Amino acid sequence: MKASHAAIVSIIAMMTATGTMAQFRKPEDAIKYRQSVMFTMGNHFYSRIGAMANGRVPFDAKVAADNADIVVMLSRLPWIAFGPGTEHGITDAKPAIWTEQAKFKDLGEKMQSEVLRLQAASRTGDLDALKSAYRSAANACKSCHDTFTTQ
Amino acid sequence: MKASHAAIVSIIAMMTATGTMAQFRKPEDAIKYRQSVMFTMGNHFYSRIGAMANGRVPFDAKVAADNADIVVMLSRLPWIAFGPGTEHGITDAKPAIWTEQAKFKDLGEKMQSEVLRLQAASRTGDLDALKSAYRSAANACKSCHDTFTTQ
Repeated sequence: MKASHAAIVSIIAMMTATGTMAQFRKPEDAIKYRQSVMFTMGNHFYSRIGAMANGRVPFDAKVAADNADIVVMLSRLPWIAFGPGTEHGITDAKPAIWTEQAKFKDLGEKMQSEVLRLQAASRTGDLDALKSAYRSAANACKSCHDTFTTQ
Repeated sequence: MKASHAAIVSIIAMMTATGTMAQFRKPEDAIKYRQSVMFTMGNHFYSRIGAMANGRVPFDAKVAADNADIVVMLSRLPWIAFGPGTEHGITDAKPAIWTEQAKFKDLGEKMQSEVLRLQAASRTGDLDALKSAYRSAANACKSCHDTFTTQ
């Protein structure tokens, strides 16, 4: 637990410095928050952009761009909600998130950079570019979820 | 139920036209989506901006502006998730949402315009302007929730 302790101290220092400690009154609120963000992000990513990338609904460049903007904004939010005390409770998060902080951070940043690429692709109006960027971003989501969640 | 039927037909027509019917595979997904959006929005509105407006945390103009941007984006999302079939299930939504569509739409739009005013106020760097816009927006949230939810 030594590495984990260091990681938690680092998270507390970061949260206190940015004033975000006040964002959640109790760990359950943080868990519900990150789950809400992930569910909303998943809806816009899979059910809106993915539906176009996979041909389930007609391609509409404006809809793709609007949904990519939503995904990008949401991709930045959940991380603050993995603070100390939020590893217990009704959560699919594996303990590895708190014991392998560097890897978790790396995969989280990979996802964020992939959705930025998706946003750029959505601006081209080219369905093939969107499909390619969507697949890469979906792989980044899957990679982190396979490693760090029980789902 | 005649007015309600007309409202539902109108919603179906709107959803089909915009291709958003595919966003939710079943009513439970729509309910979970709107709850997720509302919870996330409430966190950024009350726990981040409200904390500054009420003096619980120090005022930081950039944090206020960033959070106002998130609130504005989220304020546009939940409405599509009040479609037919989503009036039942685990929800705090009152049946009046589907029988008093015009009033629901009006209060929803009022909230959206108030958070746009909050976003503008957050750009001034003036805490008093933020406080005033925050109070107006909070009243718009409360007005709709008092009327249309059981919470």
